[in-house]
Amino acid sequence: MSEYQYPIKDILFSLQSVARIERVTPYLEDPIDNDLLDAILGEAGKLSEQVIAPINASGDKEGSRVENGEVIEAKGFKEAFKAYSEGGWIGLSGDPQYGGQGLPSYIATAVNEGVQAANLAFSLCPLLSLGAIEAISLHASDELKSLYLPKMLAGEWAGTMNLTEPNAGSDLAAIACKATPEGDAFRIKGQKIFITWGDHQMSDNIIHLVLARLPNAPEGVKGISLFIVPKFILNDDGEPAERNDVQVVSVEHKMGIHASPTCVMSFGDNDGALGYLVGQENEGIKAMFTMMNNARQGVGLQGLAISERAYQQALEYAKERKQGMNAARTERAAIIEHPDVLRMLMTMKSQIDAMRSLIYVAAVENDLSHLSTGEQKKQSIARTALYTPIVKGWITEQAQEITSLAVQVHGGMGFIEETGVAQHARDARILPIYEGTNGIQAIDLIGRKLHSDNGSEMTKLLAEIEVELKSIAQTAQNENATKTLVIVEQAKKATEACLASMKSDSVLGTGLAYDYMMLIGYLVGAWLQIRAQHESLQSDTMGVDEKASWSCSVDFYCDHILSRAFGHSHSIMFGKTTVDKLNKNAFNR
Amino acid sequence: MSEYQYPIKDILFSLQSVARIERVTPYLEDPIDNDLLDAILGEAGKLSEQVIAPINASGDKEGSRVENGEVIEAKGFKEAFKAYSEGGWIGLSGDPQYGGQGLPSYIATAVNEGVQAANLAFSLCPLLSLGAIEAISLHASDELKSLYLPKMLAGEWAGTMNLTEPNAGSDLAAIACKATPEGDAFRIKGQKIFITWGDHQMSDNIIHLVLARLPNAPEGVKGISLFIVPKFILNDDGEPAERNDVQVVSVEHKMGIHASPTCVMSFGDNDGALGYLVGQENEGIKAMFTMMNNARQGVGLQGLAISERAYQQALEYAKERKQGMNAARTERAAIIEHPDVLRMLMTMKSQIDAMRSLIYVAAVENDLSHLSTGEQKKQSIARTALYTPIVKGWITEQAQEITSLAVQVHGGMGFIEETGVAQHARDARILPIYEGTNGIQAIDLIGRKLHSDNGSEMTKLLAEIEVELKSIAQTAQNENATKTLVIVEQAKKATEACLASMKSDSVLGTGLAYDYMMLIGYLVGAWLQIRAQHESLQSDTMGVDEKASWSCSVDFYCDHILSRAFGHSHSIMFGKTTVDKLNKNAFNR
Repeated sequence: MSEYQYPIKDILFSLQSVARIERVTPYLEDPIDNDLLDAILGEAGKLSEQVIAPINASGDKEGSRVENGEVIEAKGFKEAFKAYSEGGWIGLSGDPQYGGQGLPSYIATAVNEGVQAANLAFSLCPLLSLGAIEAISLHASDELKSLYLPKMLAGEWAGTMNLTEPNAGSDLAAIACKATPEGDAFRIKGQKIFITWGDHQMSDNIIHLVLARLPNAPEGVKGISLFIVPKFILNDDGEPAERNDVQVVSVEHKMGIHASPTCVMSFGDNDGALGYLVGQENEGIKAMFTMMNNARQGVGLQGLAISERAYQQALEYAKERKQGMNAARTERAAIIEHPDVLRMLMTMKSQIDAMRSLIYVAAVENDLSHLSTGEQKKQSIARTALYTPIVKGWITEQAQEITSLAVQVHGGMGFIEETGVAQHARDARILPIYEGTNGIQAIDLIGRKLHSDNGSEMTKLLAEIEVELKSIAQTAQNENATKTLVIVEQAKKATEACLASMKSDSVLGTGLAYDYMMLIGYLVGAWLQIRAQHESLQSDTMGVDEKASWSCSVDFYCDHILSRAFGHSHSIMFGKTTVDKLNKNAFNR
Repeated sequence: MSEYQYPIKDILFSLQSVARIERVTPYLEDPIDNDLLDAILGEAGKLSEQVIAPINASGDKEGSRVENGEVIEAKGFKEAFKAYSEGGWIGLSGDPQYGGQGLPSYIATAVNEGVQAANLAFSLCPLLSLGAIEAISLHASDELKSLYLPKMLAGEWAGTMNLTEPNAGSDLAAIACKATPEGDAFRIKGQKIFITWGDHQMSDNIIHLVLARLPNAPEGVKGISLFIVPKFILNDDGEPAERNDVQVVSVEHKMGIHASPTCVMSFGDNDGALGYLVGQENEGIKAMFTMMNNARQGVGLQGLAISERAYQQALEYAKERKQGMNAARTERAAIIEHPDVLRMLMTMKSQIDAMRSLIYVAAVENDLSHLSTGEQKKQSIARTALYTPIVKGWITEQAQEITSLAVQVHGGMGFIEETGVAQHARDARILPIYEGTNGIQAIDLIGRKLHSDNGSEMTKLLAEIEVELKSIAQTAQNENATKTLVIVEQAKKATEACLASMKSDSVLGTGLAYDYMMLIGYLVGAWLQIRAQHESLQSDTMGVDEKASWSCSVDFYCDHILSRAFGHSHSIMFGKTTVDKLNKNAFNR
């Protein structure tokens, strides 16, 4: 089994030269110099490599189980969570008022790339905790914040998100869980499913955030409220005391992320679970939506992370495994010498480079949307909203191909579980599903983003891409930029076609959404790859080999990966009538 | 869990109207009329639906295990194998001289589509038996044939293929297993890995076909011989008696096809396993190659079969699962009413239709290559050789996308193992790997097929496609045909580019092979889809709805699937320099 190596050099280059973190600096109280960034990421890399990665395969094999109404997680996870918490990693970008370190979120993103690559199942526990922390930070009363945030930011208590019910998956309007007022608090009753890390023994308390309906609440999404429901109710000293009326019913048997307990949770089997309202009554969905950019970008990051992990393993195997002869037919060759294996590895690597650039560009924009002011804030909010479905949707689709190619490079060994590479493909399969399926992401992009502002933010993005590519094409005679400008023109036409389609029938128009998301994803990837190539060639500090490696990746991307954009664009421009014509009768044969 | 329905109507249409089985009729002693074909496939469908499909999920869960040196297969498999054998299905296209029924192989293909869709893990046992039967039929002495074929064709004895060793996967030249002469027989010693159904309790004997080297044999592939090594040595009455010196060491833990025991086999731990030479000394690889078209087309068929199974399950779920509102916003909608779900389902269905057409067209050509004479035989041998890598490579790549989409249609439920759809994706993952990885298929197409005859058979195929599409475009004003003619032109140019590249450097040229295989696959799929549309519209017996369903599938394919050919063609035409430039240093960053 290959060992994970945190790709700190690629991450730093991506942050500094592609995502241009200096854009955030003017808005920070304490600027972050390169040495500090190096030091933080160096430590994060060590934790990921040495503490969290080694329990990935064993966790997959062992999984988790319910014993006496409690979830027992896989061996070693409790110790790893302790190391992670005590290192202060959960509170990295948390509010200093409650014990957080107040660092910009692009640093947390870079740290989490390592944690997620090391062990996707493990990483979900802190990720969900961060979601809960964010919801409380943004919407809860000061009293609730003081009670819950310090312990959560310290990692002493974990958090969960309880949205889904058997009849309410993508369709949150159907939520049926009930909340009844009782004094200052509420009694929660109902069943939730697919609750990630819904129970475990790694922390002293678990703070569930639960969507439920108050009596006489309006129907649909406008009648849903958000509640804190702790596993152990706090006593007057703010310490976990009496057990709340919330139980784990079972954990699911899943295709992947076996070590992450996916729980069926029952609230209020007896008197009702004690809960505390977060934000205003009936505004739970709004509170959820304010967290959505972060959560969805977090899943995109998982797509990058697991792709990198799978790629590293495939690369190592390809260098070691000997089959067939070398080109000169003088000796047996490592399979990396065969052109088709090189093609597979560079298909992985060049897309990973593009995905990483997009992740950090979006993270910086996200920081600006929170930290900056005035026109910049407005612009960054709009851009973050536009990037989010591309980050989540396009990157997690790529992760399917990349983790599958990693299996393929291994040949028959790839299909054997002990090799460890199949786990990455199984784990990655959840990414296009949770936190809004990729179909939902595509519809978000074409509807809530493109259609809602009549295409203005997308037009702006395409114009920026065009200006930068034209400049690089002219000043540096970069052929990749010239080639990509052809796709920019196609993207403009596709954008017009999608807008027209959404205006004439916003339901049918969503039939074009997936192709549109993929087209824009491949284009944005090319744009940032070309920026990376341009920056690398101009770098004073990067070595010749490293520059050549970057150019190889970008040239390959523009010749072999970007070409897929032709297909998606063609589907949008010439395929519309066919999607319109589809209905369920087409399948009655 | 959805129940499998053998798609007999689609299969019959594909056989009769697209693959044109009447081409085989002149070469049959007993012509097969429609009623007989209906009856055979009807019975095969029942067996698949009622006997073999019900043990698919339980077999996945239970897997197989080694106990006291014997493999114990999953529950119910022995009974199913008995039903399958006693129904005479193994001997369907076997030699009547040894108890086979002598039917053309297109019928066996249609039968096996059902068996493989019902239970991929199960289907591998008869499939490998058929491979062994074929090897013995084509290459063994009459004495060996008389001893082994009747019992194998009756399904009383099963067969296996023993090629792979730890250091010899794709590279069979590295085989090290030894055979030492002893009287008329040989003693075999060595280890084989990845032996499918290498041991089990479903038959009275297991006939292993083993590749090994004789003393002083030439190095490489020209020094490998083929042997029969029975699990139980036959006594003078030809009945299984003494245990041979062959042992199962272990079974692998795999990502999928859990119920199919993948064995490590040890030959000759004691005195050496008794083996009997099949064909000439040192000509074992040649014997293997004569079976390869069948075996590889068989894996392509698995790709079609499991895709159909996964599609059926996704379609059923999409009709039942309610999320969100219908277009008029009057009531909750089944998710099949959402355009993006329709897109996913039709992406599956339209490709399955194309894959099925290709499977049966290739099966008919394969029959002609065996049954016809003179010029026709010559032509069919060349065409079968050309189709084989496309059938295996392109179809099994499609199966990855289709089984993954089936998971996606299920949303979160798709990731839960009990739903059953994840199994199809896990099972399907082996298909691009075994029986020659898809990289090997692509290199076979561009090298042994295209380059070897200087492109003549491919040029002929492209010319035939062009003539038929032009005719349909003109006589029926079929727009799909007009669109596809554009891709024919691209395929011609890509063919020239690949030929030129292979001539200048046949190792580097293989870097284009994968894109070339996929380009030709999508084009051939479009050609046969358009033939299917044309035939369906002209049919006197097909209903209006069924005709409309076919047109929907073909229109969708030509607008949304064929468009991917642009990307592959672009990669070949403009990407060559980038593949040439790649080497392992590109990954040192």
